[in-house]
Amino acid sequence: VEVAKLLELKLRLGGDDVKHQFVLKTPKGTRDYNPKQMAIREKVFNTIVGCFKRHGAETIDTPVFELKETLTGKYGEDSKLIYDLKDQGGELLSLRYDLTVPFARYLAMNKISNIKRYHIAKVYRRDNPAMTRGRYREFYQCDFDIAGHYDPMIPDAECLRIVSEILGELDLGDFHIKVNDRRILDGMFAVCGVPDDKFRTICSTVDKLDKMCWEDVKNEMVKEKGLSEEAADMIGQYVSMQGGMDLAVRLLEDPKMSQSKQACAGLGDMKQLFSYLELFQVTDKVVFDLSLARGLDYYTGVIYEAMLGPAGATTPPPPPPPQAGAPKAEESLSVGSVAGGGRYDGLVGMFDPKGRAVPCVGVSIGVERIFSILEQKAEAEKVRTTEVQVLVASAQKNLLEERLRLVTELWNAGIKAESMFKKNPKLLSQLQHCEESGIPLVAILGEQELKNGMVKLRTVATREEVDVSRADLIEEIRKRTSTV
Amino acid sequence: VEVAKLLELKLRLGGDDVKHQFVLKTPKGTRDYNPKQMAIREKVFNTIVGCFKRHGAETIDTPVFELKETLTGKYGEDSKLIYDLKDQGGELLSLRYDLTVPFARYLAMNKISNIKRYHIAKVYRRDNPAMTRGRYREFYQCDFDIAGHYDPMIPDAECLRIVSEILGELDLGDFHIKVNDRRILDGMFAVCGVPDDKFRTICSTVDKLDKMCWEDVKNEMVKEKGLSEEAADMIGQYVSMQGGMDLAVRLLEDPKMSQSKQACAGLGDMKQLFSYLELFQVTDKVVFDLSLARGLDYYTGVIYEAMLGPAGATTPPPPPPPQAGAPKAEESLSVGSVAGGGRYDGLVGMFDPKGRAVPCVGVSIGVERIFSILEQKAEAEKVRTTEVQVLVASAQKNLLEERLRLVTELWNAGIKAESMFKKNPKLLSQLQHCEESGIPLVAILGEQELKNGMVKLRTVATREEVDVSRADLIEEIRKRTSTV
Repeated sequence: VEVAKLLELKLRLGGDDVKHQFVLKTPKGTRDYNPKQMAIREKVFNTIVGCFKRHGAETIDTPVFELKETLTGKYGEDSKLIYDLKDQGGELLSLRYDLTVPFARYLAMNKISNIKRYHIAKVYRRDNPAMTRGRYREFYQCDFDIAGHYDPMIPDAECLRIVSEILGELDLGDFHIKVNDRRILDGMFAVCGVPDDKFRTICSTVDKLDKMCWEDVKNEMVKEKGLSEEAADMIGQYVSMQGGMDLAVRLLEDPKMSQSKQACAGLGDMKQLFSYLELFQVTDKVVFDLSLARGLDYYTGVIYEAMLGPAGATTPPPPPPPQAGAPKAEESLSVGSVAGGGRYDGLVGMFDPKGRAVPCVGVSIGVERIFSILEQKAEAEKVRTTEVQVLVASAQKNLLEERLRLVTELWNAGIKAESMFKKNPKLLSQLQHCEESGIPLVAILGEQELKNGMVKLRTVATREEVDVSRADLIEEIRKRTSTV
Repeated sequence: VEVAKLLELKLRLGGDDVKHQFVLKTPKGTRDYNPKQMAIREKVFNTIVGCFKRHGAETIDTPVFELKETLTGKYGEDSKLIYDLKDQGGELLSLRYDLTVPFARYLAMNKISNIKRYHIAKVYRRDNPAMTRGRYREFYQCDFDIAGHYDPMIPDAECLRIVSEILGELDLGDFHIKVNDRRILDGMFAVCGVPDDKFRTICSTVDKLDKMCWEDVKNEMVKEKGLSEEAADMIGQYVSMQGGMDLAVRLLEDPKMSQSKQACAGLGDMKQLFSYLELFQVTDKVVFDLSLARGLDYYTGVIYEAMLGPAGATTPPPPPPPQAGAPKAEESLSVGSVAGGGRYDGLVGMFDPKGRAVPCVGVSIGVERIFSILEQKAEAEKVRTTEVQVLVASAQKNLLEERLRLVTELWNAGIKAESMFKKNPKLLSQLQHCEESGIPLVAILGEQELKNGMVKLRTVATREEVDVSRADLIEEIRKRTSTV
């Protein structure tokens, strides 16, 4: 019977041939996070959540999938990138594509008309991944949104202040935030003579200005999209404009722009926005840029996008300075946008049975690109992946029970402690474990110490050892780790 | 043109008929978390993660979906509950069913042979939901696992200590943890005369003892599964046994049990386990219970399951005492198992191209049931969903700019602060907002205060107001909120 069982087991585990059919990988465009990456991720999230909480946000969570129809008609052409679930009977489901549409669904479903909330979760897009630059098919979004009927531009300005605080705190070097307004764009297209039915497609072409030069963009407008050369040139003049409140004031007096009601509404609000940004002390980070277009259909007012590098750089910023162990310059990542958002006053109404609108403005932090940068920076560094304060070790054999007794005392006192799972580990390998994982203290037990009611407390960094009485040990560890 | 646009917009937003096709809900078996539920969830996760970190764990993350073949052949009959993704070209994918199989895949893929890691993430099962009792199709697992070749029962005992710490800290009332061993179960079946090919199916029937009485279980064994009456009765005698180390010692001397090598190996380890549990000070919470079976195929040694209520209670514990606003007794949730786990020494080898084994033992905390209990407890209570320390308010009109200036000063100092998004909110509505969301302090600006360089600082709870100079304000807020 024993032999039969073993044979059956062997068969079940399979021979080498069976094994090799197995592809040992994560799905295309996804990745695991190892402990070091998780430590970086945790730090970034703590900074972001800290900022969201400082601004009084609550948080919600929604399921990873939604009814397929909830997502239908929200993303235009990008809908083809939505992951659908297999029809296994019951409802047709799709993985969420962003956090904004589920948020709008949540507001409509619960009849909430004002809230300041953040939501940090993974979203899914069947896009072409470029993983070295932080572009994945499964990726995190960190969204902060303000819903409610308020006086114009106050919440919008707070969103920009939040982006500025977060990018500043994450210490990613210089950055700037471009702002524009859908109404200014539409007004500009109108006064430049773009036919109404070409607004959206011309807007998509303008959106490419961060990757293409003006000549190529103009070419696409005229040759591919059939715009007149004059209209294109006129657009070209406007989209080269950058400034602050002064530019909004100037454009309000522009003979053409001032003819569009929409543009004037947008420009008036832009002026107001900059006055609040002044009070929020972030005007040095924000540029009113008429070339900023942004793809998503649902924006109705202010739009913005944050880029690393100083203002005025239209090309992606230079990579961070090379470090020991970092890849060569040409392999280095180039990162463009690290945050974006805008006002979408119509989306919630699309879900409400009575079409009741809830105005919203929000921002999404592109953490994957930020992870990429920080992971690259950390490549040469040692990053701790545990928080253990003390290893309970033994200098002689047969002290497992004493080690377990002591580690239990430490856990009872709330101290982060571990002891090796071997009966008789060598002292050297115990010390090595501390070096490798950055544990600052070792509590060493020996026959002599046990007899005297003492513990030898060793500081790993300095190798200094002191004898501490068992009664004082917890106090001593607390003292030493609060300053470490 | 304007009219045409408006008409088009109306069409796009749809009439009432179009609206009503819309089902405004989350998918079956899933739910949103509102801010109050999130506050409870955050508290539970902080407790659990705090414990995992105290025990020296690192953390990892894996994608929400895996290659379909990664999950194939790991869950036996339960495989039918796996969510598959639609074949949209490319790889065939499935949503993860638990965190254990992705963990084993991760270890094999990265050739990791020892690690202590935790992983908190959602998993997916197309099961029959019972949402009032915390059973969802999308639900969180909080897993802690120790992988590596170590001396027997030391990591296993630490897992039990961890369950005990967490359930104690979460303050859910009395609880106990049942332990058993797959080898003891198999040995018991063998000596009771269960044919080899019926081990698994008889084991599943034993697993139902927490829901069915012995007579019904026996009936299923004899009538449905064709076991002899004598064998069933013999099993019945064993599975009624509960105890501690003493029971392991007694069974090692049991004339029948001692004939099975497997049972003896399991019982010897059980003795050892209890000696470590003694050192870890958790023997009062742990019961060696021969009726504990657990469904999953991959367990190879120790298994355990934690239940709320005192030891010896085989039926679900009574619901928490009814509170104002809580549902009536008969609707109250009954919670059984809140944590479970065991040793699975063969799973990583199923992924390794060379079949190289990595022994593992782990525990999974069933947080959804815990959320349910704590949400029910909190129904009558006020739970803060933001952390705002101070609201910047104004007593007169036209002070928006001054409010924004002051709130910026507070943000700069790292203080959690907000101000209302209206130009001229009423003082009463500002104070009401504080009452509702639990903000402890209000900094009130008025013409007089601005002239004198002062701010009126009001404590919401006591309505006490003091004048503080602008220079001292931040210090004063810090002082008051550190003790609040």
